[in-house]
Amino acid sequence: MDIDRVLREVRVEPGRRAGLAQRPTDWREEPELRRLNSEELEARARSVIAASLEDLRGAQEMLWADDRWSLLVVLQAMDAAGKDGAIKHVMSGVNPQGCSVHPFKAPSAEELDHTFLWRCMKAAPARGQIVIFNRSHYEEVLVARVHPEVLERQRLPEGKRGRKFWQERFEDINAFERHMARNGVRIVKFFLHISKGEQKKRLLARLDDPDKRWKFDPGDVSERRRWDDYMEAYEDAITQTSTEWAPWHVVPADHKWVSRAILASVIAHEIRALDLSFPSVGPEQRRRLEQARLDLESE
Amino acid sequence: MDIDRVLREVRVEPGRRAGLAQRPTDWREEPELRRLNSEELEARARSVIAASLEDLRGAQEMLWADDRWSLLVVLQAMDAAGKDGAIKHVMSGVNPQGCSVHPFKAPSAEELDHTFLWRCMKAAPARGQIVIFNRSHYEEVLVARVHPEVLERQRLPEGKRGRKFWQERFEDINAFERHMARNGVRIVKFFLHISKGEQKKRLLARLDDPDKRWKFDPGDVSERRRWDDYMEAYEDAITQTSTEWAPWHVVPADHKWVSRAILASVIAHEIRALDLSFPSVGPEQRRRLEQARLDLESE
Repeated sequence: MDIDRVLREVRVEPGRRAGLAQRPTDWREEPELRRLNSEELEARARSVIAASLEDLRGAQEMLWADDRWSLLVVLQAMDAAGKDGAIKHVMSGVNPQGCSVHPFKAPSAEELDHTFLWRCMKAAPARGQIVIFNRSHYEEVLVARVHPEVLERQRLPEGKRGRKFWQERFEDINAFERHMARNGVRIVKFFLHISKGEQKKRLLARLDDPDKRWKFDPGDVSERRRWDDYMEAYEDAITQTSTEWAPWHVVPADHKWVSRAILASVIAHEIRALDLSFPSVGPEQRRRLEQARLDLESE
Repeated sequence: MDIDRVLREVRVEPGRRAGLAQRPTDWREEPELRRLNSEELEARARSVIAASLEDLRGAQEMLWADDRWSLLVVLQAMDAAGKDGAIKHVMSGVNPQGCSVHPFKAPSAEELDHTFLWRCMKAAPARGQIVIFNRSHYEEVLVARVHPEVLERQRLPEGKRGRKFWQERFEDINAFERHMARNGVRIVKFFLHISKGEQKKRLLARLDDPDKRWKFDPGDVSERRRWDDYMEAYEDAITQTSTEWAPWHVVPADHKWVSRAILASVIAHEIRALDLSFPSVGPEQRRRLEQARLDLESE
């Protein structure tokens, strides 16, 4: 996979509109891929993922040894767009000692008692770690925007929900991410971009397949009815928060394997860009290591 | 105490210089006070504190019942300026169920593995609560500025300590506090402003008094040698971070009882300004309460 080409296609340049309606949910760009059937496509994607995983494994070990940087991956999508599958296929094989997934469910009573960034800050990666946010603080400008009634549960004081409310949330999120970036957290954000037709197919498949039925949430259907509202919320959120320090990537997600391969490539690229190396051993430390060898040998 | 007058004297207007060198460490403003000896001054201050404490107690109960706002009090000062005594005398008597003190010591290994605001966010007050930061995130632009070697322990990646490093920290702090304020945290910050001469007297008193000797830290004397550097760091930090949403107050601290009385008055004023009230009971809820009474009485 040509990563420069991929980035050109999927990255939302800071200051530009997300333009979701114009962005493909399908990956039609490479004529070569168009000739493949779905098995061939999957095989191709698997080999890209395998190669990226090798990169990721090595990079993650260096991230851990170097102990200065960390990586935060933000994953957002409509239901059934393939977030969980992507995490499973892209990140399985990375040492879980240095990599964890943080799912964002409906906020707890304790979380509602604090500002909306409180639980994000608490879950932020420590140096040397990779953390994946499965959903994230962006729910605060997505679900909360489509269903303003969830804001009631936050019990904001009178006067705190003014005209610029959403703008201020974007501003707070950008400042929060900038603070993290300034202190060594590399942030990379993905929106898995699925079409409404493909979502319908997948939801029906969940109903049909006994092994997938547990995944079906009747709530998904009512959320689906708000599709256009969600797209509008995503359009605004991605446009307002794709920054130099934390860019968004809109990943075509109608083909699961294609979106996974893109995700894997971009993440591997991001870690490589950190230009990590194993800590070098200076003369003083080398002397100490030699002394340790002598001590051990003379035991 | 005339609170408007006090605020005029001690509040650092956003956008204006802190001007610490020109600000009194003594409270010479009220000619009436100048005529009092120290016992009389203490008695006067105690009565102000007692009145403020009544306000504080009532206000804190409403803060708790209202459950929308919270209050964050930030206390910074040079050693021996009276932070601990102020907390003890101003806040004792407030229900600890809704009021706690969070001391900031040298950061732990886990804290150093995260950005410097991580531990502040974790300790931020929940709705309905008062939290006092005894020292705070400002240590990151004070101690860390006078002793840049402590920054080494944060293991920031290469290139993250550029020319605008301190400016960026101020910016991050302001954005962090603004986020809190937007979500219902009222923030009020105090610098207890003691003179170098008074500090010397208090440190010597700690050495002389067997009951106070445990408080003496030889490190305080070496920090004292960096007095001018600290004043410069405070001057810049207070100037850059006194904002509409989180103003600084420079409290003359050479007389302990005066500084305590000022602190108590300003905090009580801040809570009153929230315009809290006990949650009102609507017709629906009133019906339910009446039903509950009937159920209880018919048992």
